[in-house]
Amino acid sequence: MNLPSLDDVRAAAARIRPYANRTPVLTCASLDDRVGCRVFMKCENMQKVGAFKFRGACNAVFSLSDDEARRGVVCHSSGNHAQALALAARLRGIDAHIVMPDNAPAVKKAAVAGYGGRITYCKPTLEAREETQRAIIARTGATEIHPFNSPRIIAGQGTATLELIEDLPDLDAVIAPVGGGGLLSGTATAAKGLRPSIRVLGAEPAAADDAARSIAAGHIIPSHDPRTIADGLLTSLGEITFAVIRERVERIVTVREETIVEAMRFVWERAKIVIEPSAAVGFAVLFEAAAKGDHDLRGKRVGIIVCGGNVDLDRLPWQA
Amino acid sequence: MNLPSLDDVRAAAARIRPYANRTPVLTCASLDDRVGCRVFMKCENMQKVGAFKFRGACNAVFSLSDDEARRGVVCHSSGNHAQALALAARLRGIDAHIVMPDNAPAVKKAAVAGYGGRITYCKPTLEAREETQRAIIARTGATEIHPFNSPRIIAGQGTATLELIEDLPDLDAVIAPVGGGGLLSGTATAAKGLRPSIRVLGAEPAAADDAARSIAAGHIIPSHDPRTIADGLLTSLGEITFAVIRERVERIVTVREETIVEAMRFVWERAKIVIEPSAAVGFAVLFEAAAKGDHDLRGKRVGIIVCGGNVDLDRLPWQA
Repeated sequence: MNLPSLDDVRAAAARIRPYANRTPVLTCASLDDRVGCRVFMKCENMQKVGAFKFRGACNAVFSLSDDEARRGVVCHSSGNHAQALALAARLRGIDAHIVMPDNAPAVKKAAVAGYGGRITYCKPTLEAREETQRAIIARTGATEIHPFNSPRIIAGQGTATLELIEDLPDLDAVIAPVGGGGLLSGTATAAKGLRPSIRVLGAEPAAADDAARSIAAGHIIPSHDPRTIADGLLTSLGEITFAVIRERVERIVTVREETIVEAMRFVWERAKIVIEPSAAVGFAVLFEAAAKGDHDLRGKRVGIIVCGGNVDLDRLPWQA
Repeated sequence: MNLPSLDDVRAAAARIRPYANRTPVLTCASLDDRVGCRVFMKCENMQKVGAFKFRGACNAVFSLSDDEARRGVVCHSSGNHAQALALAARLRGIDAHIVMPDNAPAVKKAAVAGYGGRITYCKPTLEAREETQRAIIARTGATEIHPFNSPRIIAGQGTATLELIEDLPDLDAVIAPVGGGGLLSGTATAAKGLRPSIRVLGAEPAAADDAARSIAAGHIIPSHDPRTIADGLLTSLGEITFAVIRERVERIVTVREETIVEAMRFVWERAKIVIEPSAAVGFAVLFEAAAKGDHDLRGKRVGIIVCGGNVDLDRLPWQA
């Protein structure tokens, strides 16, 4: 299998530079005190569409030939990838067909529509989504842009870490959450490529721990209907992300739901940034390590990829 | 009256540099689209204690002689100034006596205590606060650190704008909210001192518009029991802040409560930063200008002093 390389990440960075935000890296002294290390937050919540997903989608869309692009792109996603693909397509002046389950949150439907995505609703099952997508491809010839299991997507997601390590070449470790594994794969590809001594950790909800179990077993073990507040991390690994993570990630750390909510609230309250539950999972790794006392990152310089900040502000997790 | 000068702001900057955060300046393309100008957010919500208040308190505390400092400091405040003074005093290793009304929000009591402030509770009236403070001064010899009507405090608050204009020397305008006027006075002193052509606007809730009325009348007209969601802006101007604002601020713009909530939510949702209602008042000026169409800041480069981010996350304004 042809795994994405640091050069692919560099090419992606050059490709998306005119469109993506170079996001800020923020720090927070009370967070550092709380977790016992020096944390650098790479704020992909401040990326276009409010999530790192724009990097990969943008790289994929601008990698298409003119002939491919003319027929548009398609994905089935109710999350940040759908918004990201809609915006990237609009920037290239092509159609983005977005297949969404009809029970997706109103805020996500509105966001995709706001970026000009052409939404087709379907039943909330994987089968319905895939069938609907196949029908769109048959009709339009659109290119499927998979949300994570693609070298172009992985390379695009890696550009966040490329920027982070350009800003802070002496990081000891970097933590990224893992759902389908696109972000973690890109993070590891960029980080290990630029700085072989760096430690790369994946952060995963214990309630959706397919990546941890898959890496332990040596083959992909999909989750079945996982329930976690980190709704961006429900997906299981794909073949490419599994291979990249197995080769380049030190380990996957699982965290409890309560810690995710605690970390999310702490970051809002003290760091003053709006992060979504999936982004809190990376922080939760440090919260649990600090609580246990066996903290092999104590005193280290740790980058956290703050994957996104798209939250329904009418209903916050601690208000449930 | 001896008004604070740019040199005072520079001296304050040197004095507080070891203790205060140099806060980031963030931008948000969808905010720019919404308001029709290029906005630079000086993020004092990411200052120590979550508000610009730390700058002034720190400057005041570290301006004391050793002899004065030994007897401690005192203020009556339930807000961010109390937390700021408690932390500044702790950093100098001296006592901070904080007089708070017994009905202050639990989150504020806990924050002051967390920074080591020695809280004395009193009835929630100005008379009770002042009497309690007098008793503490009589007993301890502590120095009163007024939250705004003081050249040292004003000079300290001005350091945020000093940094902002160091980062962005070509700003066309800067907007700061006005309650007691310490922040706006400091902002204007730094901005006009560094760049005489810059426009300085004050932002005030129409429901607590004593500053606008005072400037129009040419003398201080205090508010009586104003009600606004921007609970950091309830105070009326003092003699020093009135004089500085009259001399150095172009005008005070008043905004409606609905716009404050709308702007606050927009900034959370799109810029992904946690700001308090008082900080949203500055943004609300641009929201109302854009809505009216007569927008003399259209296309301009506008700095907004994001005064703070201390919010009770259990109860958000749009959930009321």
